[in-house]
Amino acid sequence: MMYDKEQLSARIEAYMQALPFPQEPDTLYEPIVYSLERGGKRLRPLLAAMACNVFREEIDDVLPCAAAIEVFHNFTLLHDDIMDNAAMRRGKPSVQRKWGVNSAILSGDAMLIYAYRLLEQADTSLLPQILRIFNDTSLKVCEGQQYDMDFESLEHVPMTDYLHMIELKTAVLLAGATAIGAVIGGASEEDRGKLYTFAMQLGMAFQIRDDILDSYGTEATLGKKIGGDILEGKKTFLTTAAMETADADMRLKLAGLLHNRELLDETKIARVLDIYDRLGIRERAEKAVADYTAAALEALAGVSAPEERKGRLRDLAAALNGRMH
Amino acid sequence: MMYDKEQLSARIEAYMQALPFPQEPDTLYEPIVYSLERGGKRLRPLLAAMACNVFREEIDDVLPCAAAIEVFHNFTLLHDDIMDNAAMRRGKPSVQRKWGVNSAILSGDAMLIYAYRLLEQADTSLLPQILRIFNDTSLKVCEGQQYDMDFESLEHVPMTDYLHMIELKTAVLLAGATAIGAVIGGASEEDRGKLYTFAMQLGMAFQIRDDILDSYGTEATLGKKIGGDILEGKKTFLTTAAMETADADMRLKLAGLLHNRELLDETKIARVLDIYDRLGIRERAEKAVADYTAAALEALAGVSAPEERKGRLRDLAAALNGRMH
Repeated sequence: MMYDKEQLSARIEAYMQALPFPQEPDTLYEPIVYSLERGGKRLRPLLAAMACNVFREEIDDVLPCAAAIEVFHNFTLLHDDIMDNAAMRRGKPSVQRKWGVNSAILSGDAMLIYAYRLLEQADTSLLPQILRIFNDTSLKVCEGQQYDMDFESLEHVPMTDYLHMIELKTAVLLAGATAIGAVIGGASEEDRGKLYTFAMQLGMAFQIRDDILDSYGTEATLGKKIGGDILEGKKTFLTTAAMETADADMRLKLAGLLHNRELLDETKIARVLDIYDRLGIRERAEKAVADYTAAALEALAGVSAPEERKGRLRDLAAALNGRMH
Repeated sequence: MMYDKEQLSARIEAYMQALPFPQEPDTLYEPIVYSLERGGKRLRPLLAAMACNVFREEIDDVLPCAAAIEVFHNFTLLHDDIMDNAAMRRGKPSVQRKWGVNSAILSGDAMLIYAYRLLEQADTSLLPQILRIFNDTSLKVCEGQQYDMDFESLEHVPMTDYLHMIELKTAVLLAGATAIGAVIGGASEEDRGKLYTFAMQLGMAFQIRDDILDSYGTEATLGKKIGGDILEGKKTFLTTAAMETADADMRLKLAGLLHNRELLDETKIARVLDIYDRLGIRERAEKAVADYTAAALEALAGVSAPEERKGRLRDLAAALNGRMH
């Protein structure tokens, strides 16, 4: 059958909640269960399940690998939170605030291994291919995180470098999830490649939408304060585009603003947004989201499956494009 | 052919040194190359290669998986060094001292994934089994490290708990390496089980020998100061046995000594060793090493292969038992 998004989400959530973890040592496994309980969009397993369901009526076989990707994703969040010294994650204290840094490191390590445990359940004939995609994807995510950290000490990052970073850090995992789902669904290599491209382009749109929402969303829908990226001086699509578009004077002014630690938060955010407005940065970012989404849909259109079977992925792309949080 | 230890070591070292790593981002891969360059005994890949060579003339096929285990082992050292805030590793600055904690976390993560990359090269028909052993082993190593951390806040750890901890933290990885080597060699399930037991018992002896050497070795052969464990108040076979053997008075005295931060290092070490002497702790530890080694050799004797093919593993067990560093 063809499952709709809610059905797939429910199946994934049920599977995630039922993941068996050893009881002991509880100091190792409690932080893992805590990390996985905290919800989130479950976007990556959803992509895997939808990609599988394009080609295959039943989706049971995709659940362990879909869960592996979600566990991996949550592992990266756990370790990223240590590196960023983040106090909160999805409205709850981060693992390192609750259990300490050492626990967070080690529980993260165990999570990563646990993700690979879940891959054991893949059909043995598909396992080599799945392991290859999973490894390739995971290593690239680490590379993306490294570039992100490296960028912190740079005044300005060229747009191509920024896009390469978010491709690795964010888009590749959506693409890997989708490709694994396609493999399990029995897609041809060509269709798998097209679905990989679809999700990669979607991932680029997804990250840039994230950057836009952080500056232009509303606190009510986003669930956190607006302007966090600006206050942290983070490199985003917006800062990168602005530094690239601005003339020498305005670039100096923007760099000074982003490093200014004396201004009131509201003032700082307002002044940065004012520069964005003058440079048309929001429009440029919206166009990038639209372009990446269009490229995603074009790749999806080339997948050799009946149009109605690709509908869920099309709807998901549209929903992510227009999302408010 | 049957390779001797030096030939196998040379093959493993050459393979390790030739491992291909991406150039970029160098900030991610340099710490990995640095970690793997630093040598060490290469005991785990050696066990894998020897176990393979018991059943099989050629050992090329075991090298990627043997290297995977060595990369995994070095990943655990890298992350352990963060958790212990260790300044040095094998006579060189630890990764987190050289590149910072965040780099050490992320490079460690990438190393763990890289270990799984190496498993991709396993024969596809063996991959499911190898992946299962590798995952099971790795997760147990994390559990062992967690117990080790948990023990830090305990006054006294029962001997059974201590032995369970070193089984997980140290012995299981030797056992997993050996089992994977046996699988690749084509061992029967029964022989694989016996070799697993062999290496597990050997691993117990290995760790207790480590504990003995830290207190009773010589700086010249050990390459570091004697008594480090005592100064750090670490739980070892020696402290555990002493706390268990001592009467109430002496236990109080020993606990007080181990927590004492005012005594000169030499005085503290001398007084703890004096208590060990009075309780016959060194002899008890030596007996434990001998017993575990005997159990290892007994398991090895049961492996259905010609005696001469098991000679390398027997020699290795003897060498580890009598080692000075």
